[in-house]
Amino acid sequence: MIRPGRRRPTAPRSRRGTPPRVDRIALGDLRPDPEALLGRVAYLRLALFETSSAVAGRATDLADREAITRVAAVVLEQHTELARLIESNGLVPAVVMHPYTADIDRYRRRIAESGWHESVLTLHLAAGLLDDFFAALAGGVPGQDGARIAALLERDIGHDALVAVLQTGIGADARLASRLALWGRRLVGDTLLLARGALADVADAEGHPATTEQRRVEPIMNDLIAAHSRRMDRLGLTA
Amino acid sequence: MIRPGRRRPTAPRSRRGTPPRVDRIALGDLRPDPEALLGRVAYLRLALFETSSAVAGRATDLADREAITRVAAVVLEQHTELARLIESNGLVPAVVMHPYTADIDRYRRRIAESGWHESVLTLHLAAGLLDDFFAALAGGVPGQDGARIAALLERDIGHDALVAVLQTGIGADARLASRLALWGRRLVGDTLLLARGALADVADAEGHPATTEQRRVEPIMNDLIAAHSRRMDRLGLTA
Repeated sequence: MIRPGRRRPTAPRSRRGTPPRVDRIALGDLRPDPEALLGRVAYLRLALFETSSAVAGRATDLADREAITRVAAVVLEQHTELARLIESNGLVPAVVMHPYTADIDRYRRRIAESGWHESVLTLHLAAGLLDDFFAALAGGVPGQDGARIAALLERDIGHDALVAVLQTGIGADARLASRLALWGRRLVGDTLLLARGALADVADAEGHPATTEQRRVEPIMNDLIAAHSRRMDRLGLTA
Repeated sequence: MIRPGRRRPTAPRSRRGTPPRVDRIALGDLRPDPEALLGRVAYLRLALFETSSAVAGRATDLADREAITRVAAVVLEQHTELARLIESNGLVPAVVMHPYTADIDRYRRRIAESGWHESVLTLHLAAGLLDDFFAALAGGVPGQDGARIAALLERDIGHDALVAVLQTGIGADARLASRLALWGRRLVGDTLLLARGALADVADAEGHPATTEQRRVEPIMNDLIAAHSRRMDRLGLTA
């Protein structure tokens, strides 16, 4: 449903190296609290940056380390831009991010790596799913901020490089594929839970109870899972 | 000695929040091997980036974490620009950096943190000393590359923010000052050793044995130590 006088969300775009974007119309129809969305996305970017630079630092191959450092650079640039956006709204990034640190830190502990390739897969899959989710959600933030957040999250963090690293690993060790398939299945559950957490802020803004929102966004969750399955397929892994 | 037809090294500039720059004329008179210098500086930047993002991730205060992440962002940008400079010379960053990884990794293991504030001090002191040293050395690289590397290393990585974090820590815990004083003294020795390692490449380019170079650069080493002592003084620590 598109309300009158409301900016119509842009059509989904496909990014180089990633499956076609999740349709953002359904999520973009929700009205998330802008400050909450910024806080969550900025902190998630900070966490993803720390994960990616740690993964880069643990690479045994210097070219892989360089490639994943480039992913970290994009993610850090996104975080920096979000922090500036928060500041341009007269707010302090640490204060705006603070309410969301506990949830996101719990998520990070749950998916704490069991191996280097698993961590690379985490970057690829979790960033892919959460970027799709939050870019769609940002479509519902009125004004320029929503469009800026969505555009920023649609930027390719370098998924092709991550896929290449994973494919090389799978090519060199046949057992890695089954380990990664298992990891991908575990990861998607935790990542969807984290995404669902953000819907609490949406419910507040819309004035509906969280349960109503969760039913409304069920099709979107299915789209996110479908996009996740395509990422797994591309790696030859069973989702 | 300034040779005829040679770009005269620029006068030392002072950076906001840091002690006056070490005079680069003496070091700028040496002719380092450009590829070796780029390899060392690019890998050192990658290592410093990984250290700074790890230090940021271990901050207990979210504002500190944000502040140190900004330091990591500057350092990463420097690394990225150096990698691009290497590529613009038709070379592969990982290949050019590779010969210098063992030395720098050994240095990192030697200064592996004994506490969070010690790591923050490491960022401030080691980056300060090595940036002074390599910016001066880059003055001897002919053409645009030398000037670009020097300008890049003269960029402030955010020393004021690091000093502020350290001052807050020292203010809250009187015992921290003596621990940090000890750490600073240990750090300077290892960091000077790492700088001296780079003079091996200079000796090759000039055709002098390394021992001659080391005598020639003794005054510079003393300047680096004097700048280090000023950084320690600023923190109220005995160098």
